[in-house]
Amino acid sequence: MKKINIGLLGWGTVGTGVVKILQSNSALIARRLGASLFIKRIADLDLERDRGIKVDRKILTRDARDVINDPGIDIVVELIGGYEPAKTYVLESLEAGKRVVTANKALLARDGDTIFEAAQRAGLEIGFEASVGGGIPIIRSLSEGFVGNRIQSILGIINGTANYILSRMSEEGEEFVTILKGAQKKGYVEADPTIDVEGIDTAHKLAILIRLAFGTKIKLKAIYTEGITRITPLDLAFANEFGYRVKLLAIAKRDKAGIEARVHPTMLPQNSLLAGVRDVFNAIYVTGDAMGPMMLYGQGAGMMPTASAVVGDVVEIARSLLGGGAGSKPTYLASKGLKVKDMEELVGQYYLRFWVVDRPGVLAQISAILGKHQISIASVIQKGRRVGKAVPIVIMTHEAREGEIRRALEKIDRLQVVRDKTVFVRIENRLN
Amino acid sequence: MKKINIGLLGWGTVGTGVVKILQSNSALIARRLGASLFIKRIADLDLERDRGIKVDRKILTRDARDVINDPGIDIVVELIGGYEPAKTYVLESLEAGKRVVTANKALLARDGDTIFEAAQRAGLEIGFEASVGGGIPIIRSLSEGFVGNRIQSILGIINGTANYILSRMSEEGEEFVTILKGAQKKGYVEADPTIDVEGIDTAHKLAILIRLAFGTKIKLKAIYTEGITRITPLDLAFANEFGYRVKLLAIAKRDKAGIEARVHPTMLPQNSLLAGVRDVFNAIYVTGDAMGPMMLYGQGAGMMPTASAVVGDVVEIARSLLGGGAGSKPTYLASKGLKVKDMEELVGQYYLRFWVVDRPGVLAQISAILGKHQISIASVIQKGRRVGKAVPIVIMTHEAREGEIRRALEKIDRLQVVRDKTVFVRIENRLN
Repeated sequence: MKKINIGLLGWGTVGTGVVKILQSNSALIARRLGASLFIKRIADLDLERDRGIKVDRKILTRDARDVINDPGIDIVVELIGGYEPAKTYVLESLEAGKRVVTANKALLARDGDTIFEAAQRAGLEIGFEASVGGGIPIIRSLSEGFVGNRIQSILGIINGTANYILSRMSEEGEEFVTILKGAQKKGYVEADPTIDVEGIDTAHKLAILIRLAFGTKIKLKAIYTEGITRITPLDLAFANEFGYRVKLLAIAKRDKAGIEARVHPTMLPQNSLLAGVRDVFNAIYVTGDAMGPMMLYGQGAGMMPTASAVVGDVVEIARSLLGGGAGSKPTYLASKGLKVKDMEELVGQYYLRFWVVDRPGVLAQISAILGKHQISIASVIQKGRRVGKAVPIVIMTHEAREGEIRRALEKIDRLQVVRDKTVFVRIENRLN
Repeated sequence: MKKINIGLLGWGTVGTGVVKILQSNSALIARRLGASLFIKRIADLDLERDRGIKVDRKILTRDARDVINDPGIDIVVELIGGYEPAKTYVLESLEAGKRVVTANKALLARDGDTIFEAAQRAGLEIGFEASVGGGIPIIRSLSEGFVGNRIQSILGIINGTANYILSRMSEEGEEFVTILKGAQKKGYVEADPTIDVEGIDTAHKLAILIRLAFGTKIKLKAIYTEGITRITPLDLAFANEFGYRVKLLAIAKRDKAGIEARVHPTMLPQNSLLAGVRDVFNAIYVTGDAMGPMMLYGQGAGMMPTASAVVGDVVEIARSLLGGGAGSKPTYLASKGLKVKDMEELVGQYYLRFWVVDRPGVLAQISAILGKHQISIASVIQKGRRVGKAVPIVIMTHEAREGEIRRALEKIDRLQVVRDKTVFVRIENRLN
């Protein structure tokens, strides 16, 4: 039986998962592939840590070049993460004639052009299914299964940490910080959760999805990115009352005027499938002109689900290699630079939660300002009465322009009766 | 730009959809593929019907062999459906050196060995994404993305008609026949719905999924198949009360002792994602040892979603062709003949709905028989009182063996106080 040799750069959590799968399911994979997959070398700075798996110590090295320059290695799997040295290693691997599999979303989001151009120039496959949604086959679906469709929109819950925190806050009624600390204790959340809770990781993944779906490149800073730290249990309870759930959503939509690209907490109808995606699960809801709406759901992170995606890519590239590697590859090069719409132009419904003094006439003042900005009110709730003290008032708007919302809130937040910065959450009612 | 020539066998609904996509999205597809797709010939017995699209009449023919034997055609798309002449045409196309794309689930379920052997012998790709779940990329996911996983179970809602009828029955409280007739009037359901409502179509698709997931062949008659015609609005209302929804589920599970392969109405927890799959939508919930649970959701039938899957396959095969067609293909040949477990051995929870005379001691008689068969009761409901008349009693069991359930019900249905055949529905609580 033929043998395909793999070199691993980075032996952390996902790398360990890849080794585990290739050890435990080797016979199964060999049968499905018609060849055996063999880990020839593993490079990592830390070779001592106990990873709970057995590997021949002779294959271990601290020098990534021992992998990149090994003529016997067919496929390099980059699992170091971050920009450097990962970028250099990926480019060197392609130059050395290796196929590459990577889970590196930050790198592909920022330097996708460079990486994909290098792969195209070398005529070599690059697999990156693991970069978005862990084991969820969204990269493959966008570039193969959905290829006949004009993609109209993508709505994704693609950060497990943020979704876990929002789910726990909503179900337990606890504050962001409380849930975050609890999750950190359990090891679910990293010591520095900024990249997850501020939506940055979500924006990285959205940039990759936009490239595949719309064939356009997008700069990270062109993606409006807002995290979940402002969300309170009070807002989640109000959302619930109005029939919504709050999710950190990656949103990309396209029409003739350009694309929307944004990451922010979003209210979704409770009975929608996306609203039912809880805890660390991810889901990506894609609508195409032919296929209609489609949703892929699964574990978006973690050792084994991400390793599953890596192994899927390795097998697909190995199949191509077994045939001489001459197959035509999907192009991931962006051919267009589509206009990204300004957030001010966004039109949608909004949840506005004011913190105001409970006194006659307050609602009149607020609604007068909203009216001046062409924002009409769909419903209002004020819970409890505490005359002369601060209470929350919630207004759900009809469709309004974001620019008007922002200007109205600036004015409202300056009113004497308003005691705290108004929280606003965008609503996504139309899931197609 | 290079051109890939396609020949269409069968110009019905899906065939029309394929032509529509290739017309409306031709530039987009050409950019993604790096070549243009061209429909060179279309064969159908009916060339006169108005399909609402424009095609050059010169490409039309009534003779399938004009397509199969055209040396200029690279890919034959078989959309005739059914066993013959589709089978002969697919085999002849492979013999003539054509790659094949088909949506024919009945053919692949019954004659998969013959078809896949012929493709393998010829060294030619065969695409059949459209055979299960319309536009949902389940075939590609099982053979590529999930390839590193030992698949443990598949639970699928894969017949849109059955799901539509059950959803409408549940939400409108109407009888099966009423909903069926309404759906037929709207054109949602075929004149003869037997294959859909009796679970036969679902079993066809399950056979294909089992081949891909477990690498085993399975005879259609080895799949326990039970349709939805016995389900009443009363049962759906009770299910609701117990926190369940009823879905026609395709179930395949694997352990060391063999596989379970069954199609039947199943109660699913209301808050599960599968329970939220309504109307004509399909969803397939797959669990693998590495990736964990994964769900793919979308439109499982209809002109455009199914055509979307066909075009995805055509593009993937075209990519291989552009590289000389030498790539290694996933094998769809079943290497094993795994034991299919007898339904009698099934262990699970059951919903039992009796129709009994409202009289003291009835429950005692029923529960005595259940007890003798090691069936223990989790809860009982009797709604309303109509002393001396027939009323429904519902029992939810703890885990019990199906064989015991069947034998107990045989005895219970012979009791004098029992006025109708007892309805039983299997419950699926563990969705992993």
